Amino acid sequence: MEVVISIDIGGTSTKLAKVNRAFEVLGTAMLDTTAFTNESAFFLALFEEVKSLSESGCTSEKTVAIGIGAPCGIPKEGVILGAANLPFSERVEIVRRFEEEFNVPAFLTKDSYAAALGEGVSGAAQGMRNYVFITLGTGLGCGVVIDGHVLHGEHGQAGEIGHTITMKDGRECNCGQRGCLETYVSASGIRRTAFELIAEKNTPSSLRAIAFDDLSAKMIYRAAQAGDEVALEAFSRTAETLGEELAKVVTLLEPEAVFLAGGLAKAGALLTEPAQKKMNSQLLKSFRGNTRIMLSKLEVNEAALIGAASIAWRKLITISVCP
Amino acid sequence: MEVVISIDIGGTSTKLAKVNRAFEVLGTAMLDTTAFTNESAFFLALFEEVKSLSESGCTSEKTVAIGIGAPCGIPKEGVILGAANLPFSERVEIVRRFEEEFNVPAFLTKDSYAAALGEGVSGAAQGMRNYVFITLGTGLGCGVVIDGHVLHGEHGQAGEIGHTITMKDGRECNCGQRGCLETYVSASGIRRTAFELIAEKNTPSSLRAIAFDDLSAKMIYRAAQAGDEVALEAFSRTAETLGEELAKVVTLLEPEAVFLAGGLAKAGALLTEPAQKKMNSQLLKSFRGNTRIMLSKLEVNEAALIGAASIAWRKLITISVCP
Repeated sequence: MEVVISIDIGGTSTKLAKVNRAFEVLGTAMLDTTAFTNESAFFLALFEEVKSLSESGCTSEKTVAIGIGAPCGIPKEGVILGAANLPFSERVEIVRRFEEEFNVPAFLTKDSYAAALGEGVSGAAQGMRNYVFITLGTGLGCGVVIDGHVLHGEHGQAGEIGHTITMKDGRECNCGQRGCLETYVSASGIRRTAFELIAEKNTPSSLRAIAFDDLSAKMIYRAAQAGDEVALEAFSRTAETLGEELAKVVTLLEPEAVFLAGGLAKAGALLTEPAQKKMNSQLLKSFRGNTRIMLSKLEVNEAALIGAASIAWRKLITISVCP
Repeated sequence: MEVVISIDIGGTSTKLAKVNRAFEVLGTAMLDTTAFTNESAFFLALFEEVKSLSESGCTSEKTVAIGIGAPCGIPKEGVILGAANLPFSERVEIVRRFEEEFNVPAFLTKDSYAAALGEGVSGAAQGMRNYVFITLGTGLGCGVVIDGHVLHGEHGQAGEIGHTITMKDGRECNCGQRGCLETYVSASGIRRTAFELIAEKNTPSSLRAIAFDDLSAKMIYRAAQAGDEVALEAFSRTAETLGEELAKVVTLLEPEAVFLAGGLAKAGALLTEPAQKKMNSQLLKSFRGNTRIMLSKLEVNEAALIGAASIAWRKLITISVCP
């Protein structure tokens, strides 16, 4: 049986899966990305993991391709460019490295694109051809799927709406701009919003006892569940900012749905309901009710692994059909 | 020789062209849309124009299809829905009507989608696969081309960025919302901006002598060319508002270029330069310089006629390949 190895490279951990044509996961592995200080050591260890995952299980299994999702991955060129959170040099020719090592085709995509595709294969977007997939983690990642294919853009950067400016002269972003969407709508964004609210209001809140460095989005979520007004408002403000930007995205693309994934999306209706309401209020009447804001059904890593595998399978089919 | 008849239905005039496979225009015709008070009379006259255009010229020419671009055209359904500026009922089954009358396949698209495609066939977007096409007329129309195909969206409404909200509690729009982009960036938007500036400033201006009802975008352009400060600022404000919204569009889609067409776009560099500058200032560094704001090379009607013809030719090929 033919299988592909899919890899989701992340700043904290790198995950691997062995996936068959039916998108069943036949085995998994993991690597602690933070344990490596340079690229060579990382690839040495990653190659070992690929080999042992490839050789595990049924002897009838044959690895025919490798699919990789990575931050700052440029699909067309097969390189990772300037990934600040990885122990990599500025430019890593990852596809070439894998193809030389394993002598099978390797395919690269951006982590957010892989996750978007994975949701379509095994998640809540099954059967949909047009949707937007948003990951709310430390930052805000996005993949746009149009007619079943993820949109790359001219230089493989489409979907960077985490860095769309949502507030003039707003919060400082690591990218050098101010007011980027991800400084408001992300796990780190909601922490900033909670602190802003604490400064702004006199409302009692359990969050007043916590230092910024100790505060997590999860704590804000728990406080919100316990009825903490500051925490509840932090969620509604976050969701409304998201809803405003999504109104623009939806007016441009008219997708069937927008999916929210990642740690912060676990807050569920605390985010989706006010976001949907705000979004609808800023849409033309003929758009309202057409595009739903929904929750991803998969863990982001899981979606990215399935998505990276799906790219490998699709490309293999294209190669075999058009040699 | 096989030809298609393409039709661009507009609120003021309806234009027709006979187009061959090489996208050469072999003949044209025109109808005054405002001369008709009901749908039946309009179609009767339009059918006559199609017939006489079809029968004109070489006897070896055979009309094999009809391509139609129209406001509020829903491509998937072949109907025009709620076109306020046309003497039509709420729902017009235009494709069925043409197919019954002429016994050849007819294809419908939105006027803005047709113009976007036409620019790719015969205009400044030749050779580009990914671009955004914006028409600045009374309103702001838009067509998004991705991988050579115009984006329809789930209900044929993609690209409605004329009604993206650019200013909270901003100008009243005919759509019922406030602050829509087209209330700022369009021929009518720049008139409102000029009047706002006259109210705001004490700067002398030739525009102070003109009533709102008498003022046209062309007059503002001429005043700007003559160095009128109010007129110049009206253009730079308009362009900057456009640049801000385009930064969001480009961050999402990363197209190769954005084209400006329509009456207001004749202002050329008065619009493109400040728009490009503002847009670049709100883009991630890695995006800057990648997407150019350019001027359309065609008249909007011309682009729409060529685009409607291109849809007919493409669909015919699809039909003949996959019967």
